[in-house]
Amino acid sequence: MSVGHHFWYIYNRQSSIMKKKKNTAIILISCPDQKGIVHKVCDFVLNNNGNIIGLAQHVDREDQHFFMRIEWELEGFSIPDEKIGEFFDTLIAKKYGMNWALHFSNTKPRVALFVSKYAHCIHDILSRYESSEWDIEIPLIISNHEKFRPLAERHDIPYHYFPINRENKKEQEQKEIELLKSEEVDFVILARYMQILSGQMTEAFPMQIINIHHSSLPAFAGANPYKAAYLRGVKFMGATAHYVTEDLDEGPIIAQDVVSISHRDNINEMKRKGRNIEKIVLADAIWSHLNHKVLIYKNRTVVFD
Amino acid sequence: MSVGHHFWYIYNRQSSIMKKKKNTAIILISCPDQKGIVHKVCDFVLNNNGNIIGLAQHVDREDQHFFMRIEWELEGFSIPDEKIGEFFDTLIAKKYGMNWALHFSNTKPRVALFVSKYAHCIHDILSRYESSEWDIEIPLIISNHEKFRPLAERHDIPYHYFPINRENKKEQEQKEIELLKSEEVDFVILARYMQILSGQMTEAFPMQIINIHHSSLPAFAGANPYKAAYLRGVKFMGATAHYVTEDLDEGPIIAQDVVSISHRDNINEMKRKGRNIEKIVLADAIWSHLNHKVLIYKNRTVVFD
Amino acid sequence: MSVGHHFWYIYNRQSSIMKKKKNTAIILISCPDQKGIVHKVCDFVLNNNGNIIGLAQHVDREDQHFFMRIEWELEGFSIPDEKIGEFFDTLIAKKYGMNWALHFSNTKPRVALFVSKYAHCIHDILSRYESSEWDIEIPLIISNHEKFRPLAERHDIPYHYFPINRENKKEQEQKEIELLKSEEVDFVILARYMQILSGQMTEAFPMQIINIHHSSLPAFAGANPYKAAYLRGVKFMGATAHYVTEDLDEGPIIAQDVVSISHRDNINEMKRKGRNIEKIVLADAIWSHLNHKVLIYKNRTVVFD
Amino acid sequence: MSVGHHFWYIYNRQSSIMKKKKNTAIILISCPDQKGIVHKVCDFVLNNNGNIIGLAQHVDREDQHFFMRIEWELEGFSIPDEKIGEFFDTLIAKKYGMNWALHFSNTKPRVALFVSKYAHCIHDILSRYESSEWDIEIPLIISNHEKFRPLAERHDIPYHYFPINRENKKEQEQKEIELLKSEEVDFVILARYMQILSGQMTEAFPMQIINIHHSSLPAFAGANPYKAAYLRGVKFMGATAHYVTEDLDEGPIIAQDVVSISHRDNINEMKRKGRNIEKIVLADAIWSHLNHKVLIYKNRTVVFD
Repeated sequence: MSVGHHFWYIYNRQSSIMKKKKNTAIILISCPDQKGIVHKVCDFVLNNNGNIIGLAQHVDREDQHFFMRIEWELEGFSIPDEKIGEFFDTLIAKKYGMNWALHFSNTKPRVALFVSKYAHCIHDILSRYESSEWDIEIPLIISNHEKFRPLAERHDIPYHYFPINRENKKEQEQKEIELLKSEEVDFVILARYMQILSGQMTEAFPMQIINIHHSSLPAFAGANPYKAAYLRGVKFMGATAHYVTEDLDEGPIIAQDVVSISHRDNINEMKRKGRNIEKIVLADAIWSHLNHKVLIYKNRTVVFD
Repeated sequence: MSVGHHFWYIYNRQSSIMKKKKNTAIILISCPDQKGIVHKVCDFVLNNNGNIIGLAQHVDREDQHFFMRIEWELEGFSIPDEKIGEFFDTLIAKKYGMNWALHFSNTKPRVALFVSKYAHCIHDILSRYESSEWDIEIPLIISNHEKFRPLAERHDIPYHYFPINRENKKEQEQKEIELLKSEEVDFVILARYMQILSGQMTEAFPMQIINIHHSSLPAFAGANPYKAAYLRGVKFMGATAHYVTEDLDEGPIIAQDVVSISHRDNINEMKRKGRNIEKIVLADAIWSHLNHKVLIYKNRTVVFD
Repeated sequence: MSVGHHFWYIYNRQSSIMKKKKNTAIILISCPDQKGIVHKVCDFVLNNNGNIIGLAQHVDREDQHFFMRIEWELEGFSIPDEKIGEFFDTLIAKKYGMNWALHFSNTKPRVALFVSKYAHCIHDILSRYESSEWDIEIPLIISNHEKFRPLAERHDIPYHYFPINRENKKEQEQKEIELLKSEEVDFVILARYMQILSGQMTEAFPMQIINIHHSSLPAFAGANPYKAAYLRGVKFMGATAHYVTEDLDEGPIIAQDVVSISHRDNINEMKRKGRNIEKIVLADAIWSHLNHKVLIYKNRTVVFD
Repeated sequence: MSVGHHFWYIYNRQSSIMKKKKNTAIILISCPDQKGIVHKVCDFVLNNNGNIIGLAQHVDREDQHFFMRIEWELEGFSIPDEKIGEFFDTLIAKKYGMNWALHFSNTKPRVALFVSKYAHCIHDILSRYESSEWDIEIPLIISNHEKFRPLAERHDIPYHYFPINRENKKEQEQKEIELLKSEEVDFVILARYMQILSGQMTEAFPMQIINIHHSSLPAFAGANPYKAAYLRGVKFMGATAHYVTEDLDEGPIIAQDVVSISHRDNINEMKRKGRNIEKIVLADAIWSHLNHKVLIYKNRTVVFD
């Protein structure tokens, strides 16, 4: 989640959701580094009787920029949930010029999947969904092919087919955006979706779309990275999960992994190895995102672990 | 070692060297794939009473190209050492259109080191040299700085200072080539040598110069890869050992390794991690090269292990 | 597949299966190292007009033991499929004291899954099955819990519930063995099956049962490896796929992978990371097994790649 | 550095050392988790005009134990260096039951090396020493062999030969301890020292001796781990740097790394790969230790990065 921009949206939806488990609040902070920030933020929580259960901060000394994630239990916290944002903004954030976002752990994010014809990522995501590894809702799957409709139906997830070609792309994307908005989707996962998103889509969901690219970016951006890696004769290949921006394969990287290859690996074998790391890297990025552990700054990420 | 081109040179020097240990012959072969090649090559060795102790082959099905490495003990082999090349060429290689090279394990390669100001690779190489991990001779070190002269002297290795600037580059390189040739150098290691070699040098030592680049090529080719990796926010950084061709950082890759990084790693920390993998990757590439396990085809390598 | 023991069984079932794709024969060989073995085996194939498309061999110099895998296209091969075994045995294998096995690539192995309550491996296997990544049949799933019956039904795979306790274990296993035999199962995958198999089961399917253990064996064998790894404070954790023998977690290792951990990883996070590598390692081991690339010798494996 | 025990020693030596660079103070803290600890510690620094440049904390939720590392610039800090320990202890540490240690960044640790006959770790350490990668002093090398005396002399480091056998071990160790104490050694590195230290040594330098073991502990503890790994047929081998305790190979692990191996790697090749990771893992552990980033709790480490 990009820091701060989407605060009100997240906050408002949260307040209408049934509390089901021990609730915590999470604030992500990004601002110019200054003396005493950690201190002030801890003050805010502790003085209002919050029990801090997670605290991580980072200073980028190169850029003199500060990053923080704080999580505390809401039981007994003296500021009501729906007022936390306002109070934090007034008492702390404005004074330090913070970019920030508030999240509640008992919010169940609504996630849309985009898929084309590759099975491994969509299967992996739905397996985790089915076994409740992730506490999310998937209200819809969007695809430019009909291939995975049976899979979606088996999981009782509405499947929306949007065939895309050069002529209808803008129009189809517009419909997709409307659908996503009407379904109150929090973020989008491109599970090997083989279409390039236009600016209207990335603007509608800024830093809310996660893509998996089948190479170790920035190496082999664009189409056919396996073939390119094979031709270059590299000894490692990779996978990269990143937020989607208007510049293809240039958005902030959330997670990467690599696997060693040799002359014995032909392109089919590279694809097989690639599928294994793609689905894991994508799942790792989603996990960090879901736990509100990702901050973005200058096209880079801070991923607390 | 590029396959075949340098056969006579290697062969001739070998024959004048004292045999010190149990000697083996190694033939590296590369040719269009055809039925029965392995068979024919084994025949050549076995029918002449050679005991095969290493056999590896690979077929690139994409390119229908065949690669092989065979090693056998020379004791009792019925073809004299100095005739093996001629016989193999006549009886086998010509018939199959082979690109090939013959090596003898008791040849002690003569290796030149090029270095600038970074210590980690040169230290690592000299440590392995001193502890006889590699069976090589280092008859000279060449540098564009005086920095490592004391180190070289301590190891009794002649140190040649060739200051390089835009004006004198061609001329200085020419002198370096003459020196390398007069010292009968088999191959050259660029141990973080911070000068770009011109075409005259790479032509004088084709596929006989190994460089270590401090990134996971093809990502971050050229200058300042650490800074570039930092700015791109990657989660893995790497090191690449490759043969040097006229195209900067574009030669065949011999070995690579990677190390995970996070937002916590500033550029200094990236450099520290980078040094660790650079020296190991370079040493691994040298090891494969020394054991005649590297074949080159279409700017890619087959590295038998 | 253990080399040689099961030749007739495999061979017989194969001959009754419809050929659907370009068929190849694969022979796995293990024997004391001797001069000219590769040669003789290649002879056998080439002299009978076979086109070799895969050849890998290995010599364990410590034990002076030889391993080989050869694959050739059967089209035009002058020995009929059903006679290859007999001819090879007579002409080659007996002379060299070979332990060997013959496989045909168009045989679709029949695989049984054993599962208990963990979802990740069974989900991953069925995803690969559904997307035809593996050319296998899964005629049955066996479990000591009812949990995954709906999942099995969704995939149209018969689900057999065998509750196991100390009293009925022997008897229940006996029934399982009968069921597996009657279903002509080729091998068994323990997809996080939380029961220890007794000797009668491992004897009934020698080197035909693959287990995934959630540690980097031999570290943390037995129960609760995550907890043990946490308490020991290791910085890497792993997963191990191995053939099951009567000695718990002591069978030949087929594949392993590891993932770095730190003090930040509590046991839940270790489990999350563990699930990711467990399912991939298990799939990798199955892939090698399915492609007849695994040979066993002295409780170790040779896995050609 | 174990937390707290050695405070006075470190503190005293520090105060007599010339300040050469911008000095910082580092406090390592370990205590039962309580509300507001981070807060209180930040207060201590900030209220006295300290500029925090490093802050890391960790809570082990399993054990409800808290860990923290704070580093601040001493310029302008209102408590004199030699009083910081006393003030912190009185104002903060005692109230929270903290185990703690204070370090100053401009202290140059005095490090003793123990070595036997393997060259790679000692060479690597001395290379880093020579190129000033580490800001340490090495006042002596101790060995049970004469082998590396020339190497030590070349680096102007006194070399002490202590031949050890069953009879003289206790006595020789006692002399070593006296020598180490008289040289005011801060910590000891066992650079592949092939002798088991007795309790008198580990008690004299508790959590001040770092060893490198050539396996991925707890797998293959004790002698001959390569051979054991080979016989078990593992697909990964490792190296482990740990603090030495009286129980052989059982002390808290600081750093580990692994490298993949296959049937193609015989024991010599395993040793070659092992050497590469051993020296890097040892150097990584030393780096963490030198930067006062390691805390110990219940035989596990928290290593801040």
